[in-house]
Amino acid sequence: MQTEHAKPLVECAMRRAAGDAVIRGGTIFNVFTGETEERDIVIKNGVIAAIGTGYRAAREYDASGKILLPSFFDAHLHVESSMLTPEAFACLAVAHGTGCIVADPHELVNVCGVEGAEYVGEAFARLRAREVCPLDVLLQLPSCVPATPFETSGACLDARSTAEELSGEDFFGLGEMMNYVGVTAGDAEVLAKLDAAFRLGKPADGHAPGLRADALNAYLAAGVLTDHESLSAEEIAEKLARGMYVQVRCGSSADNAAVCAPLMTAENHTRFLLCSDDKHAADLVQKGHIDAALARLVACGVPPLWAVRSATLNVAQCYRLRGRGALAPGYAADIVAVDDLASFRVRAVFKGGVPVAEEGRALFGTSPYLPQAVRDTVHVGNVTADSFRICIKKQARALFVVPNTLVTEEVRVAVKSRGGDVVLPKDVCKLAVVERHFASGNIGLGFLKGYGFCGGAMGISVAHDSHNLVVLGDDNAAMARVVALLKESGGGMALVASDGAEEVFPLDVAGLMSSAPAEEVARRTAHIAARARRMGVKEGYDPFMTLAFLALPVIPHIKLTDRGLFDADAFCFVPTEAEA
Amino acid sequence: MQTEHAKPLVECAMRRAAGDAVIRGGTIFNVFTGETEERDIVIKNGVIAAIGTGYRAAREYDASGKILLPSFFDAHLHVESSMLTPEAFACLAVAHGTGCIVADPHELVNVCGVEGAEYVGEAFARLRAREVCPLDVLLQLPSCVPATPFETSGACLDARSTAEELSGEDFFGLGEMMNYVGVTAGDAEVLAKLDAAFRLGKPADGHAPGLRADALNAYLAAGVLTDHESLSAEEIAEKLARGMYVQVRCGSSADNAAVCAPLMTAENHTRFLLCSDDKHAADLVQKGHIDAALARLVACGVPPLWAVRSATLNVAQCYRLRGRGALAPGYAADIVAVDDLASFRVRAVFKGGVPVAEEGRALFGTSPYLPQAVRDTVHVGNVTADSFRICIKKQARALFVVPNTLVTEEVRVAVKSRGGDVVLPKDVCKLAVVERHFASGNIGLGFLKGYGFCGGAMGISVAHDSHNLVVLGDDNAAMARVVALLKESGGGMALVASDGAEEVFPLDVAGLMSSAPAEEVARRTAHIAARARRMGVKEGYDPFMTLAFLALPVIPHIKLTDRGLFDADAFCFVPTEAEA
Repeated sequence: MQTEHAKPLVECAMRRAAGDAVIRGGTIFNVFTGETEERDIVIKNGVIAAIGTGYRAAREYDASGKILLPSFFDAHLHVESSMLTPEAFACLAVAHGTGCIVADPHELVNVCGVEGAEYVGEAFARLRAREVCPLDVLLQLPSCVPATPFETSGACLDARSTAEELSGEDFFGLGEMMNYVGVTAGDAEVLAKLDAAFRLGKPADGHAPGLRADALNAYLAAGVLTDHESLSAEEIAEKLARGMYVQVRCGSSADNAAVCAPLMTAENHTRFLLCSDDKHAADLVQKGHIDAALARLVACGVPPLWAVRSATLNVAQCYRLRGRGALAPGYAADIVAVDDLASFRVRAVFKGGVPVAEEGRALFGTSPYLPQAVRDTVHVGNVTADSFRICIKKQARALFVVPNTLVTEEVRVAVKSRGGDVVLPKDVCKLAVVERHFASGNIGLGFLKGYGFCGGAMGISVAHDSHNLVVLGDDNAAMARVVALLKESGGGMALVASDGAEEVFPLDVAGLMSSAPAEEVARRTAHIAARARRMGVKEGYDPFMTLAFLALPVIPHIKLTDRGLFDADAFCFVPTEAEA
Repeated sequence: MQTEHAKPLVECAMRRAAGDAVIRGGTIFNVFTGETEERDIVIKNGVIAAIGTGYRAAREYDASGKILLPSFFDAHLHVESSMLTPEAFACLAVAHGTGCIVADPHELVNVCGVEGAEYVGEAFARLRAREVCPLDVLLQLPSCVPATPFETSGACLDARSTAEELSGEDFFGLGEMMNYVGVTAGDAEVLAKLDAAFRLGKPADGHAPGLRADALNAYLAAGVLTDHESLSAEEIAEKLARGMYVQVRCGSSADNAAVCAPLMTAENHTRFLLCSDDKHAADLVQKGHIDAALARLVACGVPPLWAVRSATLNVAQCYRLRGRGALAPGYAADIVAVDDLASFRVRAVFKGGVPVAEEGRALFGTSPYLPQAVRDTVHVGNVTADSFRICIKKQARALFVVPNTLVTEEVRVAVKSRGGDVVLPKDVCKLAVVERHFASGNIGLGFLKGYGFCGGAMGISVAHDSHNLVVLGDDNAAMARVVALLKESGGGMALVASDGAEEVFPLDVAGLMSSAPAEEVARRTAHIAARARRMGVKEGYDPFMTLAFLALPVIPHIKLTDRGLFDADAFCFVPTEAEA
């Protein structure tokens, strides 16, 4: 007969046996009632056995003057956006009080297929701080691989394989369904993925900017649970009323806190969840993670209880996690000690009752797990300077990026042709997207106007969502050299000046993430970006990250993929040469 | 590829296909936001496809002037307490707006074993109103069979068989763990049952009157989720703070609404659930079910939103029921139309979008399913008038029931002996508990003082929790005749006057419930009780139901089982003859 779960907890709670650990002197913030209690927490086998005073335990921790909270959830994120390995990411997230993340490895799977997701799960699983894993990951199976049929992706996950993968233990649910157009159009393949999650009783996350009325009804009826893309108050209010959980996104580029905060009420606040979605290494290092989001919400006028619930109990309720998201007997001993409920400055973090971070430093090692599946993923055909020649007589379509956005406008540029190539006018660069998964030799060629860059080439292997190589330059040889550098380094960010000076920062994990520690990633990405800036990239553009979105055909108005120039409004390819 | 779940819903929501039904003109009470909206609800395949206006559908229903709510949950009850078959119970409950019950067939399983529970599940499953089952039942596996080792029960469910049964599809979770003493004492067999539920991820309900401090911590750490036995405000506040869901019990004999209502706040009200626990047929007929509990809570000053949530969304959250407890796309089309949020008078009830009740009348038949397992369950040995002779010289221990309670006091009565039997003093009756499961011939004999009954005998086959026959009388022959009548009728309530007049109301289903319609059960139980009253039973006692608790050894202070007189304080048997 098995009694090992309850028995030790009962013996500890009844004081017939000592606990493994006791946290004394702290002020417990009770997410069930909103009250605070000065009580000790005694822990056995990673679980809170009791809340009271005077317990005996093998280890004792003093939390005097601190407020004790359940450790935080990030309800939706892509670890890849940090450009960090899962281990390095965990190091930062845990130090900032995060205990569990709902991770959608959308980028990795677009490059490596399901093995990319398994890598994330395995990397987190291998993390160990004493006897516990410092950060739980609920792994979502990406629902949109490839994101569009207009580019060459590293993998394809159809409905059948989605259903197969979901039926296993590896995946907690279905990742954000970005193809809301397919859902509302009744696309059989898309709906089959949602049905698979539904039949397995697994959650399906959403991604539905601007979805309202009939389309919102349809999207929810199809089984989507959450959304993190809302921008307007009216849209959020409608989504709440229709039963959608609203994920308040506090990421590097998006911040929904200001629009969400005024909408939260005593009646509806249990339907809000905090998430980061995409957060860069530098922001995680300098600003923090969900702790920063909590401080942000409270600064926006949200009562601390509502904010804390949106990062703890609400998430556990939404994803039906029993015994998580609160400090109570039978709940996981995942505990954060903070200074106050305004700064949420994290002083100590416990996972399963074991200290995993102190004063902003993780207490566990992060030597990265790097399976072959995520290494040497950059495979390009034979690319030379001549590969970047463009034969256009008079006028070409060019991209112009609206500053501080991901939106592009189509502009026309007059060009001269000489020796089988164009002569670039002032402040016009060549833009190339080089297929890098199967060495197919696909290269999409076009022009980018007004970026400011000149005197060489720059490129990056992060290019949403298929992550081919995006190369920008005014020098064919330098562009070819950038491709060569990215190939050698297994992906990354590369800069080549026409005078031969080079800099490359390798993203050796799937061409998306670096195996270096967080601080190094933050420093080196900043360094190479600054250098690109010195080569002319204008303010209003993030030198490399802006490029990373120029190949994403679902963002208006015109984009370039490895298959050519794509009109995101007409949803079709268009020639680079424009009629006069 | 299977797409049949989402596809029809999407087509309907997008107005590309007509719905199966549309409910027009009602005012939707939104449990997510607390707001009301004048919208139509369109339904496809039993699910709400969309909320809006102007939908086409095969069937149309007018809800003008009505408020639309999600149908109600009863978070904890024993159907047996109604003395009705599942079908007859459903008829009443559904007419009063109940759409789903969490049922613990504790009494049936004590008589018939697991087959008694399967009977309940099967009986509800066979109910059909057009294409839908009008009432969902989440069947809990009783955790305490037998309730105590001091009586002969019809079945025994040990930890091993509990784990086996729970691992199947039949049972939603583990029924109320009444043996909180065993839990806090660390009883291996008891904890193994909770561990089984824990490992299967199934909920375990609680029953913990007065449990506080260490014992409460231990009980919760062991995995118990809910409680419906709290009496004091302090106790309820402590249970809430420790993360326990508090079930507000509005039953026939217990009403927690008055004590719970003032404790509900904007912060904690999501942790309250409505339940009836035990409600008799007459009360269901005359007062209603959860609709009455809602009216009661609101009358106690609880805002309608908090009350409605405690009967809908909160229950779905507690038991992790996806797509239940609200009116939203993708949610079950289980809908109640009420006049207002004060009376909660139910006008129409829909299950899966199909009308199942109108104006207090169920729209489905209730011909009962009566498998052999629950019939002819009364097996008694050879019982004659002589079986009730008691040989006592001078003084005897007798039970006295404190009026309007289930509590008994031990009193001493002086008796004379004549011809091998006692001569009963004034207002003292013989009390007998006759084992009725295995015809073992066990008869526990004792005395009841001050009940008022005289001139014959009365008895009942409902006797918590083992449900042997409890017989009271001042006439051995009449007592033997009562046993004979109960045997013949397969259990019930029987009354025999010394002049030979008889009345019996059969409880032919396991000796606990009647296969008759609700109104007949209400009328005939009232009739036989009134007759017992005329034979002297004093006010302050329910003639038959008070007897039904005299064999329950866990209620203070002295009880009688088929094995003899039991001291519930010393927890041991004591002789009926008392030392002078």
